Amino acid sequence: MKATGIVVEYNPFHNGHLHHAAKAKELSGADIVIAVMSGQFLQRGEPAFADKWTRTEMALSAGVDVVIELPYAFATAQASEFARGAIELLGAAGCSSFCFGSEQGTIEPFLKSLELLSTERERYNQIIHDRIQTGISYPKALNDAYLTLTKGSEGYADLTKPNNILGYHYIEAAHKLNSPIKPLTIQRIGAGYHDPLEPGVAIASATGLRNAFFEGEELTQLSPYLPSSSIRLLERVHSEQQGFVDWQRFYPMLRFTILREGPKALSRFAEVTEGIENLIHEAAKRSETFDAFIDRVKSKRFTRTRIQRMLTHIFSGYTQQEAQAIKHPEYIRLLGMTQHGRRYLNGQKKAIPLPIISRAADLTGNMGQLDIRASTLYLQAIGADSLKKEYTTPPIYLGKSSDK
Amino acid sequence: MKATGIVVEYNPFHNGHLHHAAKAKELSGADIVIAVMSGQFLQRGEPAFADKWTRTEMALSAGVDVVIELPYAFATAQASEFARGAIELLGAAGCSSFCFGSEQGTIEPFLKSLELLSTERERYNQIIHDRIQTGISYPKALNDAYLTLTKGSEGYADLTKPNNILGYHYIEAAHKLNSPIKPLTIQRIGAGYHDPLEPGVAIASATGLRNAFFEGEELTQLSPYLPSSSIRLLERVHSEQQGFVDWQRFYPMLRFTILREGPKALSRFAEVTEGIENLIHEAAKRSETFDAFIDRVKSKRFTRTRIQRMLTHIFSGYTQQEAQAIKHPEYIRLLGMTQHGRRYLNGQKKAIPLPIISRAADLTGNMGQLDIRASTLYLQAIGADSLKKEYTTPPIYLGKSSDK
Repeated sequence: MKATGIVVEYNPFHNGHLHHAAKAKELSGADIVIAVMSGQFLQRGEPAFADKWTRTEMALSAGVDVVIELPYAFATAQASEFARGAIELLGAAGCSSFCFGSEQGTIEPFLKSLELLSTERERYNQIIHDRIQTGISYPKALNDAYLTLTKGSEGYADLTKPNNILGYHYIEAAHKLNSPIKPLTIQRIGAGYHDPLEPGVAIASATGLRNAFFEGEELTQLSPYLPSSSIRLLERVHSEQQGFVDWQRFYPMLRFTILREGPKALSRFAEVTEGIENLIHEAAKRSETFDAFIDRVKSKRFTRTRIQRMLTHIFSGYTQQEAQAIKHPEYIRLLGMTQHGRRYLNGQKKAIPLPIISRAADLTGNMGQLDIRASTLYLQAIGADSLKKEYTTPPIYLGKSSDK
Repeated sequence: MKATGIVVEYNPFHNGHLHHAAKAKELSGADIVIAVMSGQFLQRGEPAFADKWTRTEMALSAGVDVVIELPYAFATAQASEFARGAIELLGAAGCSSFCFGSEQGTIEPFLKSLELLSTERERYNQIIHDRIQTGISYPKALNDAYLTLTKGSEGYADLTKPNNILGYHYIEAAHKLNSPIKPLTIQRIGAGYHDPLEPGVAIASATGLRNAFFEGEELTQLSPYLPSSSIRLLERVHSEQQGFVDWQRFYPMLRFTILREGPKALSRFAEVTEGIENLIHEAAKRSETFDAFIDRVKSKRFTRTRIQRMLTHIFSGYTQQEAQAIKHPEYIRLLGMTQHGRRYLNGQKKAIPLPIISRAADLTGNMGQLDIRASTLYLQAIGADSLKKEYTTPPIYLGKSSDK
């Protein structure tokens, strides 16, 4: 059996993701699709709006065959580390290709950009360094440097677009890892809220859908944008967790934690650097809501996403010391599989170089303990004896084919 | 004007405390009574069931003239440190005497015990050391050593009784500080729940009263045991804070904090020693309630009180490193005063060797920052934008005489 891989967060799983999984299979000619998915915390430095098992079940119900958890250390890292962890896991799981959605829509421009940045690395870094001195943010400096290098030439990927940037990181990661995994891309549909996939089936952004949830829109009203299985699962988790999760919901715990650490100690957490700890502490002292808090802290230099990643690490107690010890994924934590997925894994078992973990109790190393810690803190912040879920939930198994 | 001092927690202020304040004045011949009171956390390692301002107002309404906050570093320390901080503050505030309630009821036995333990210190310590080797708790070892030294002799204080023990610590602290402050004691009434003070006025223990609150008894039903002002203030705080505070209420925050720190890091907090950090972490993982948690951790060797003090320090983020830096009280934080109290303080101002602090913003040193941190964490754990109270509440001033 042949497998292709995708890197996902499914926050939530919507029609665009359905399209992505189907196209990945088609384009790669693979028999099954393996998704490596962030756990309880996401790359933008946010708690997932629904727990990882709900998001896994949504995916398995709509075309994904295996869901693997991207360990916290990669899932909440900067894009290059995030990509490296994900691509390495997909390679370990035996995928012969991976497929990402991009604004670009074809793979050649990415390969051309990779070639350019590999050969011109020194000049590129110099421009970035110079630009940062002017006080702009790191992402902005990257962008400026890239534009300078590609100016006047054609055929390069447009790395001002968010999905192109992430896609580029995947390709660069595969290249650096010297991995035989083959990159593929599909045209991303649906920047807008109502972009149609096929008549009557529309694509909305995950952000747009989450906003609709938090503004109290009925889940059934969102049926044009989500598979019916997603709606059913979202209704279940909404009732179990008494609402969805966002930073505002976790703000009492986050604020308590920031005040308890005090400004000095905050600087030991991952990504918290350059004197921002005082600002974070002062803002927590003064702000009754998360929105007021983040407005006090973010700036041109420290983007919202970067601040949120710091907050995620403070919340999870993830220190710079821990981050420095992280090298490569050490296990494949199986969150769920379909019948097809199980058949594939059984066949591949001997070829997979990492242990396949089905129970949290088997995560004994530092990387695994960190995953358990982040997950139990997420569950504890939701409240009401849900913490033990991390230890007791087995991989989700969907015995019959999807109900999409 | 002449002042006498008392050391209190007022958790809550009841008829026994009314009696104590009145008798202290009578016995000392003082014009006013100064209470040094624990803030949001108490010596038994518990959050106070009502905030420090409510407890201050109860005291001022019923016979106490000045309330000073015992800094966190002393209020939550072992008895000898607790006593040292309290007696030093009373001395600084200009008290010529202090008066404690004891089972003993007269001061001579304490002075005789002090004499004995001062001269036989070495033998005493040796016995304690030997007893601890047998695996018993520190308080039990102290007790054994004392019994061995006083065996067959008469006239010593009975240091098996809790209030006698605390009283002995005060006297020993005054002695070690070489303080001119004169120790006084009154007979403690009311070990039982209904012990009468005068016809129709009964004394219940603070613990008994708190249990009654938490079991949902109507506050007005407790009027035989509490001054009417206490009942009024308790009704107010109960409504403002949506109930009273205990560890069960703070358990979600405590549990989150323990899980976030992980077992290794727990050992850096004050009083957390001897490998108990793994037990604390494991118990937090498994226990959905505070009662279940404490039952898993406490033992003959680690008493409930000792564990609770560890938890208080973990909750407040108070490290061994911070504790080692604590020497002497650095300020007098004024929580409240009556008209009488104000007149006294105005007259004494120049003689008081420590700064008198009325606003949290003026607490700039480490000891003061710790007080602010502990108080804001207490308020944040109660919830609902009450945190700023620590910064905005001025000392309570009762302009007219008490309404007892």
